[in-house]
Amino acid sequence: MPQERRRLIVVSNRGPVSYAVENGARVAKRGAGGLVTALGGLLAHHDVTWIASALSEEDETVAAEADGAFDETTADGAEYRMRFVAHEDDAYDRYYNVVSNPVLWFVQHYLWELALMPNVDRGLEGAWDDGYAVVNAAFADAVVDELEARPGATVFFQDYHLYLAPRYVRDRCPDATLAHFVHIPWPSTDYWHVLPERMRFAVHDGLLANDVVGFHAERWRRNFLRSAEVIAGWDGGRPLVTAHAISVEPGEFDRVAGSAAVRQAEAAIADWRPEKLVVRVDRTDPSKNVVRGVRAFELYLTEHPEAHGRVAMLALLNPSRQDIPEYSEYVAAIQRAVREVNDRFRRDEWLPVELRVGDDFEQAVAAYKQFDVLQVNSVFDGCNLVAKEGPLVNERDGVVVLSENTGAFEELRDWVIAVNPFDLVGQADAIHRALELPADERGRRLRAIQAHVREHDVAAWAEAQLADFDRVSAAARR
Amino acid sequence: MPQERRRLIVVSNRGPVSYAVENGARVAKRGAGGLVTALGGLLAHHDVTWIASALSEEDETVAAEADGAFDETTADGAEYRMRFVAHEDDAYDRYYNVVSNPVLWFVQHYLWELALMPNVDRGLEGAWDDGYAVVNAAFADAVVDELEARPGATVFFQDYHLYLAPRYVRDRCPDATLAHFVHIPWPSTDYWHVLPERMRFAVHDGLLANDVVGFHAERWRRNFLRSAEVIAGWDGGRPLVTAHAISVEPGEFDRVAGSAAVRQAEAAIADWRPEKLVVRVDRTDPSKNVVRGVRAFELYLTEHPEAHGRVAMLALLNPSRQDIPEYSEYVAAIQRAVREVNDRFRRDEWLPVELRVGDDFEQAVAAYKQFDVLQVNSVFDGCNLVAKEGPLVNERDGVVVLSENTGAFEELRDWVIAVNPFDLVGQADAIHRALELPADERGRRLRAIQAHVREHDVAAWAEAQLADFDRVSAAARR
Repeated sequence: MPQERRRLIVVSNRGPVSYAVENGARVAKRGAGGLVTALGGLLAHHDVTWIASALSEEDETVAAEADGAFDETTADGAEYRMRFVAHEDDAYDRYYNVVSNPVLWFVQHYLWELALMPNVDRGLEGAWDDGYAVVNAAFADAVVDELEARPGATVFFQDYHLYLAPRYVRDRCPDATLAHFVHIPWPSTDYWHVLPERMRFAVHDGLLANDVVGFHAERWRRNFLRSAEVIAGWDGGRPLVTAHAISVEPGEFDRVAGSAAVRQAEAAIADWRPEKLVVRVDRTDPSKNVVRGVRAFELYLTEHPEAHGRVAMLALLNPSRQDIPEYSEYVAAIQRAVREVNDRFRRDEWLPVELRVGDDFEQAVAAYKQFDVLQVNSVFDGCNLVAKEGPLVNERDGVVVLSENTGAFEELRDWVIAVNPFDLVGQADAIHRALELPADERGRRLRAIQAHVREHDVAAWAEAQLADFDRVSAAARR
Repeated sequence: MPQERRRLIVVSNRGPVSYAVENGARVAKRGAGGLVTALGGLLAHHDVTWIASALSEEDETVAAEADGAFDETTADGAEYRMRFVAHEDDAYDRYYNVVSNPVLWFVQHYLWELALMPNVDRGLEGAWDDGYAVVNAAFADAVVDELEARPGATVFFQDYHLYLAPRYVRDRCPDATLAHFVHIPWPSTDYWHVLPERMRFAVHDGLLANDVVGFHAERWRRNFLRSAEVIAGWDGGRPLVTAHAISVEPGEFDRVAGSAAVRQAEAAIADWRPEKLVVRVDRTDPSKNVVRGVRAFELYLTEHPEAHGRVAMLALLNPSRQDIPEYSEYVAAIQRAVREVNDRFRRDEWLPVELRVGDDFEQAVAAYKQFDVLQVNSVFDGCNLVAKEGPLVNERDGVVVLSENTGAFEELRDWVIAVNPFDLVGQADAIHRALELPADERGRRLRAIQAHVREHDVAAWAEAQLADFDRVSAAARR
């Protein structure tokens, strides 16, 4: 389908490139993060400027040299314009490590122990005013600047780091087309009351300054429709509020799955694994529910002695946000749980739970190929890509056990075994059921997920965004 | 207003009377709890049978002797019929100390630290099936029995202990008129997902078996309308879902406030207190937010050195549910916070925070008369009666600082200083603002609350229930 070449300005905290100095020379690290993959297709076909935080010292040097946007190229060779926004270290720390994580992240995933946390104290007040608002204002300045250089461009804000920026831009560019995608859950109105009135209002007011606001699931979209009305007096007019679940690039996974690195990692797993393998792949985030996943496996082993020596869990954990106490404490809780289960059940050559902490994409894909059960039990999750990536490359008719509180559950519910993330009994039973399903039933479910993900791939997600931009542009022209 | 004498069957876990043996003789303890007060007016004017759990050994003896309902009299001399439901100790413990508290209470007040708690394990599954369901079924048996003895009676279930009973009764008495009042918040649909599907469905399905379901606030009513649709497929027909905030009996408070016991307690407070007094009166429940209340007072003292020696906090805490670890741990957290604030600021004769743990109604009323600021900062609260009781008898033009997450806030918002319960800065500022308000403004606000509570007293609440019963009866006749 030939398409019009568009002017787009993508705005996200983390960009598709970051620079470092190695052996005295500048090197570009071109990321393969989910968002970069998701938007990578847009870069190939459109006139894209990407605005992101300068995250390294060398990024700041590049930003100062360029004094605005400069030309960059993706690892795939697509050309785009890159612009760094440099922040004061202290402002960035407060924006990222205090307000965005854990406060907004914990509110949006219902994670606070509300009897005691959070405390909105002078520290958080200051982090909001002198961190989150300041960084958002710096992003808005860069967007306004680029809009002047590229009139008519559509601005596409990403995620919870940038809730305030759209209002700042709108105040100065009333006719700009602004869109925002929220990649994490949207909680109910009551739970937004964890933030004082001025903060929860500013979050909603900022989002409502857009022409389009997108979520991964109808469930989050409905929560927003309601909270925007109650908290910000939204009248239901602009913005257009939509739900399109993000997805993966099947071609990338096909290619990686067949690579020598993955084959080598897979051979190592095949060499080590017992008869049946339960796999999970997560960032070490409290929302991912790793502790209960391990406890559910423990309960499964307790109730199924016949599985001892025959079934193991492989948990691949990518360390995340370890500067934040809530995150480092959660990793410790995971390690304690794994140690307890292994101390209780291990024997001879069989280690019930193999925990590997590190960032190893090839090993994750190797594990995807090898799972008999893929355990995805998030407490709450905007979408969850593991539930799509894993089945795509799996070669053992593996079964996905999926939390009903993930956005992806809306799409995949007919082919997964649904679990409630708080229900250890249900999760233990789900492991047993998954392993006992007849082979043809397992294969049928797996192929259905594969077909769904190939049809609803990340390019389809990106196309859906562009179609939404067209809808609001057409409405504006009328 | 003369009214028809009705047949009512009130059903609650705790009843208006409990028996003990003292010096070899049976003595009746006639309670003055909120619910007994609230429904006491009904007992005087209607033909009431009250069904409640046998909570003491002597209650069980009375129940066995009576073999059904027996005649009782309230402390005020009103006659009614009482019926005890005896439970196995183990079933009752699981129903009360596992399912009702903390699980349902914590879900309905958004109190769980969801990354780690709760765990739906075999223990909770068993507590649900062999505790909560069994006790509810025993209540339903007693209700069906009494409905046979008193045809045409309206059954009025109370609160979160009895969500399953209405369905059990409805299955056997399709034409009975059943009503249920929920005295605690109703959380959003997402938060009900903390319970596995069968449990959250059963809660909703049980309530939907009623003809009337009542809440204290529109906010909780709206959450129920939505969760009943999503979780139980409710079509919006029966039951009638209403919101009427409960209230107090002003006459009782006038009488007690003038009693010798209160005057004596008041003299002791007057003797001890510094110039200004911040008062709070709570059960020691995590939802009451005592720790943050103390921390907010600490922040106020930090930022207002001129208050040192002049302003003190008096916190009267009624120990509650100390068999439940979450509750006893919360009391310890309160005591630590108070000790830290006092260690930091105390000097000479001035103790910043006076914490008194005990159950002393007269002392509470004395404190109500003496407050300059009444701090009610609940995390979430179905209604909150302290915010109504305190102003009713206050004699110092005291100001109410009230959490926006209480049901009472919907009624009192124009006359209180609103606070967000998580916002220590806002709560510290509110104490300062309250103490700095001009006397005429303080008096105007206090009198407005008093007038509101006297008009919307507990008799009005009870009348509103009867009017709701009439609406559904009339609808049934049509």
